Amino acid sequence: MTRSLLSPERLEAELRAIGAERYHDQHPFHHLMRDGRLDRGQIQAWALNRYYYLVARLPTPALRREWRRRILDHDGDDENTGGIARWLRLTDGLGLDRAYVISTAGLLPATRFAVDAYVNFVRDRSLLEAVASCLTEMFSPQIIAERVEGMLRSYDFISRDTLAYFTPRLTQAPTDVAFALGYVKEHADTPEKQVLVLDTLRFKCDVLWTQLDALYFAYVEPRLVPPGAFVPQQVAR
Amino acid sequence: MTRSLLSPERLEAELRAIGAERYHDQHPFHHLMRDGRLDRGQIQAWALNRYYYLVARLPTPALRREWRRRILDHDGDDENTGGIARWLRLTDGLGLDRAYVISTAGLLPATRFAVDAYVNFVRDRSLLEAVASCLTEMFSPQIIAERVEGMLRSYDFISRDTLAYFTPRLTQAPTDVAFALGYVKEHADTPEKQVLVLDTLRFKCDVLWTQLDALYFAYVEPRLVPPGAFVPQQVAR
Repeated sequence: MTRSLLSPERLEAELRAIGAERYHDQHPFHHLMRDGRLDRGQIQAWALNRYYYLVARLPTPALRREWRRRILDHDGDDENTGGIARWLRLTDGLGLDRAYVISTAGLLPATRFAVDAYVNFVRDRSLLEAVASCLTEMFSPQIIAERVEGMLRSYDFISRDTLAYFTPRLTQAPTDVAFALGYVKEHADTPEKQVLVLDTLRFKCDVLWTQLDALYFAYVEPRLVPPGAFVPQQVAR
Repeated sequence: MTRSLLSPERLEAELRAIGAERYHDQHPFHHLMRDGRLDRGQIQAWALNRYYYLVARLPTPALRREWRRRILDHDGDDENTGGIARWLRLTDGLGLDRAYVISTAGLLPATRFAVDAYVNFVRDRSLLEAVASCLTEMFSPQIIAERVEGMLRSYDFISRDTLAYFTPRLTQAPTDVAFALGYVKEHADTPEKQVLVLDTLRFKCDVLWTQLDALYFAYVEPRLVPPGAFVPQQVAR
């Protein structure tokens, strides 16, 4: 199927349409979390699995150089700053053992496979595709705002401090997007490259969506935890 | 944690224990299929997704040389023989469009991520780990027998011909295992290598298990099909 070249504005509109259909703010697990309908064990499972998504995208020096500012955002200037340190404050606050979180021993296999697929994608594909893969950040301020607001309202084991990971993301994400969307609109200068960019965004939505599918399956319904994965010790709120 | 060296027999016993806990014959999706409790659309989804598992492990000439006999089993001597051709007879028999199956457009993202993780594993790890990754075949005659028997008994849209994929696997799998188990027992000659081999089998069980998790989640309960994945057109048996 041949496709004609889209204007940069039209390309952006198609990217936004993919987000409206596929971004994981549409996922029922997010809705349960936002609406306070998960228990502490379910949120532990989410925080434990999401940790892997944070660390696994920074595995090599080559990637680190490409994404230095984002890495600075995540790794911070010393041991106790940066996004990953803030995420560990969340898992601490949820009562998860820090060494267990960092070991990634309790991950859902689907989390590992999805995140590793993302890392491989960024390593193996063109720079255009690697840059386009962060365009899910176009949609992240919305889901972060819903998540933070819903969780603070609903869960007494959640505080502004345990959610400190998300606050800087609200300003960092638009910076990431401004760069990436501008880059994509300039460099996707053939119909083929535009298709690549749109497919990349679909792929990246799949990476996020699959993580919530796996959490929902194991910890909400039908609650079938795969062998070896984290089992919450309590169901109390 | 240090580990002492296991005897080859003890190593084999530990490998078998992993299968007893983690192999996907314990998965509820397999139980539903075996017991005739899935409808045609659910089995279409299974056949569609499982196709990717067949083709994706044969992507490069280097891999093909390593695994030539298994590839011969799968690719056959011409277009219409071999395991993959037989799998397409199954998807044909289930009423799936062949071009749609081969396009892999309707795959569950979790299937793609899990199978790609397997391909990357075999490419990136040592030969010992690559060989050990096929040890799930130790447990496959059991699951294949259950699956074939249950499906023939329960589903009028399934025949011995549509299930022709599985029959040769009953004799091919033990040949694969005889080679791989012998290789592993000989070459895993340090405790560290034995741990690697056991971890490899756990990983490979995760690859299979995750595929059934994803099918169960999308097509059994809670029946949440991810955006873009195959949607069965009917629920009739």
